[in-house]
Amino acid sequence: MAYEIERKFLVANDGWRAAASGSSRLRDGLIARFGSGKVRVRLDGDRGLLTVKGPRVGLRRAEYEYEIPAVEAEEMLRTLADGPIVEKTRFRVPHGSLTWEVDVHEGILAGLGPVSA
Amino acid sequence: MAYEIERKFLVANDGWRAAASGSSRLRDGLIARFGSGKVRVRLDGDRGLLTVKGPRVGLRRAEYEYEIPAVEAEEMLRTLADGPIVEKTRFRVPHGSLTWEVDVHEGILAGLGPVSA
Repeated sequence: MAYEIERKFLVANDGWRAAASGSSRLRDGLIARFGSGKVRVRLDGDRGLLTVKGPRVGLRRAEYEYEIPAVEAEEMLRTLADGPIVEKTRFRVPHGSLTWEVDVHEGILAGLGPVSA
Repeated sequence: MAYEIERKFLVANDGWRAAASGSSRLRDGLIARFGSGKVRVRLDGDRGLLTVKGPRVGLRRAEYEYEIPAVEAEEMLRTLADGPIVEKTRFRVPHGSLTWEVDVHEGILAGLGPVSA
């Protein structure tokens, strides 16, 4: 099990784009919530992922993520996801020894400024 | 993805025990419900399983089951499961070309008669 510590920021402008080293197309669907935890299915390009995120405790939460067949992830997104599918492109922006992930939303959240996590 | 069609029966007596060909110790915990669907984590002996069961439609429901590290299944059972852990021994009872699964409950459901599914 890993812990997730996620901090989100709103980027000020598009200056990060020139530094991006790559990107992934993500499609996320919520299967279920439990307290402040959730179960999410994701298509990351041609990879399927099923993720259980535990309740937040302070800044962090337990995260259990498993690769699953993409065809099954797509099927769960289509038939089981609760609410809209979140579609975004995640850009990787190396910075020193770390990598920023900059999400540009489409679909239901299009128009939201890019958010880096 | 598989479909689950589950029918449960209450057994009349212990006559099935002599015909059992094997058994597994199961520990099940509910992670989350969504409508009539659910996300379950299971320890089946030394195998961990994470299962998404879709809503029931008539007699059947979609079922997505993935093997996960047993240590993570045990951790989710301990830290994330909602409500009591269901502990049971599942006996396999071959009958013609089919196999009955006879569950004998312990723990919170101990005292319930064995149920075959």
